[in-house]
Amino acid sequence: MFDNKEKTNIESLGEFGLIDYLTKNIKISQKSTVKGVGDDAAVLDFDGKKTLVSTDMLLEGIHFDLAYTPLKHLGYKAIQVNLSDIYAMNGIASQVTVSIGISSKFPLEAVEELYEGIYLACEKYNVDLVGGDTSSSKQGLVISVTSIGYADEKDVVYRSGAEEGDLICVSGDLGGAYTGLQLLEREKLVYLENPNIQPDLEGKDYIVERQLKPEARRDIIELLKSIEVKPTAMIDVSDGLASEILHICKQSNKGCNLYEDKIPLDPMTYETAREFNLDPTVCALSGGEDYELLFTVKQADYDKIKFKMDITIIGYITEPSAGCNLITKSGNLHPLKAQGWNAFKPAS
Amino acid sequence: MFDNKEKTNIESLGEFGLIDYLTKNIKISQKSTVKGVGDDAAVLDFDGKKTLVSTDMLLEGIHFDLAYTPLKHLGYKAIQVNLSDIYAMNGIASQVTVSIGISSKFPLEAVEELYEGIYLACEKYNVDLVGGDTSSSKQGLVISVTSIGYADEKDVVYRSGAEEGDLICVSGDLGGAYTGLQLLEREKLVYLENPNIQPDLEGKDYIVERQLKPEARRDIIELLKSIEVKPTAMIDVSDGLASEILHICKQSNKGCNLYEDKIPLDPMTYETAREFNLDPTVCALSGGEDYELLFTVKQADYDKIKFKMDITIIGYITEPSAGCNLITKSGNLHPLKAQGWNAFKPAS
Repeated sequence: MFDNKEKTNIESLGEFGLIDYLTKNIKISQKSTVKGVGDDAAVLDFDGKKTLVSTDMLLEGIHFDLAYTPLKHLGYKAIQVNLSDIYAMNGIASQVTVSIGISSKFPLEAVEELYEGIYLACEKYNVDLVGGDTSSSKQGLVISVTSIGYADEKDVVYRSGAEEGDLICVSGDLGGAYTGLQLLEREKLVYLENPNIQPDLEGKDYIVERQLKPEARRDIIELLKSIEVKPTAMIDVSDGLASEILHICKQSNKGCNLYEDKIPLDPMTYETAREFNLDPTVCALSGGEDYELLFTVKQADYDKIKFKMDITIIGYITEPSAGCNLITKSGNLHPLKAQGWNAFKPAS
Repeated sequence: MFDNKEKTNIESLGEFGLIDYLTKNIKISQKSTVKGVGDDAAVLDFDGKKTLVSTDMLLEGIHFDLAYTPLKHLGYKAIQVNLSDIYAMNGIASQVTVSIGISSKFPLEAVEELYEGIYLACEKYNVDLVGGDTSSSKQGLVISVTSIGYADEKDVVYRSGAEEGDLICVSGDLGGAYTGLQLLEREKLVYLENPNIQPDLEGKDYIVERQLKPEARRDIIELLKSIEVKPTAMIDVSDGLASEILHICKQSNKGCNLYEDKIPLDPMTYETAREFNLDPTVCALSGGEDYELLFTVKQADYDKIKFKMDITIIGYITEPSAGCNLITKSGNLHPLKAQGWNAFKPAS
């Protein structure tokens, strides 16, 4: 993928040189960041608030394919995926640490591109990069991100707070990241068969972007705060709607009914799923990587959210003995199963 | 290395099954841990103290070799390496997150062994495991640890606080981890040539343990607190004494004189270095992985530390224009160079 001519080999910089190079333009914007990169540990001060910590690891060949993932997008996504977990606690993300393992043969320009995406995400979401580790890897690119955030005790939302009768809501639309991935995988195969054929992604920008450049839904957290709705339970959609609602129901010890015809799908997702002979509903239920927020609210909050463009009510919480069900378009009731993305059984 | 007969394949558990399995016995011991594993993020409460965050990534083939690293030791070391950074800020470590990438063909029993070491370290150092990520890896074992700790503002020690005339101190002894590694590498080669020959590590327990099972120096932090000595600057020795003192001098904008004959070496380190035709001083200066604490104290504190068995005074801080020097046993002055371990130029 990279043309190594006239590129700077990172081996020549060494670890400290590389870290200096990559962190020289860091700007600190968070009041809670007392000391960022450059000592044994970052020093943070949350002034009486609850601290939130989340971590994710992205591995080449498992979570991303450099054949069709621009490094800048990858850096951006690595941060988003992590911030999404902080927002899913109804918190505000404030700091991240980033550790990368890269082949020493990787050109410096490629590492820079990766960090451009990382810095872009940090800037846009107003988080400080406060630490990390940079190491050679014999095993492809590895990115590990830990995000730190905060919330007032009264604001923290767990997965376990859903009550019977609560409305199940989801932000944005689902299944797009998965259908985008199908497209990218198809075009990769076409390219491998004939490198002269240009990828045909025309008119598919939205779902390709859903896959390559997801946005964590900080805006939804802000929206809910502004209309004074505190979810009773919340989780982000990383493994697919089915898997996530099952997490909420399991941890809240409740059941649920989801309505298939309420699940928000973008027309492009629908159309592309059909092209691939996939059931669009299954793409939403089991596709994953949409990084939308799935949450439950009290029925009393219905009026506050019913006309919010970017929030869809897709079902309600039931007593645990009723189980977790999907009510299909034809009115049948199907038990939900977590067939979500399994990190130990990569789809491709 | 592993006999796969009668072992449980982790693929059969899936990601959530594996996480449940590995975290089912977690005990929370820290008051600051409000919510640990099991939601989108951990929730911590530091009650007005400064929060410390540090992260490290360990990659198979770069940082460890499974040919001679028992998985339990590896898990233990992965935690120690990270806690060491929190202690180097004069803080108390309280939580860790652990992300691992492992081949899906790895037997469950092997993952369990790794976590046994992780849990053992957490228990011994009184830290809570509060989150993580578990993923398949196509490319060998990857471990990423983030540790979180706390300190009162007045107690935090940075690398940048050294003043002219301060005494340079180091805990324990140096060079052992590196000579231990040489031994392990030699025995690996012997074994590869003739698998019937048993490794000959007799009488070398100490340095082998220094390499495979380092201990972060929480005890030194506690000792310094008990004798009311606050270091002016501190760093942990992960890359070798030379590299670390240069970090302190650079960030404090000072110089230093280190005395070769003061550098603490265990007799076994000395003897083994000689066996390998290595200069024992170079092993201490550039070997790394000793995870001792290197710190500077005011001269006024001399009486408090001079008889502490586990602390050695090895030099003093000078004005920056004097440079960073090693005074050799023969009285010559050599400029110190960071030839420490370079993650992009693996020694073996």
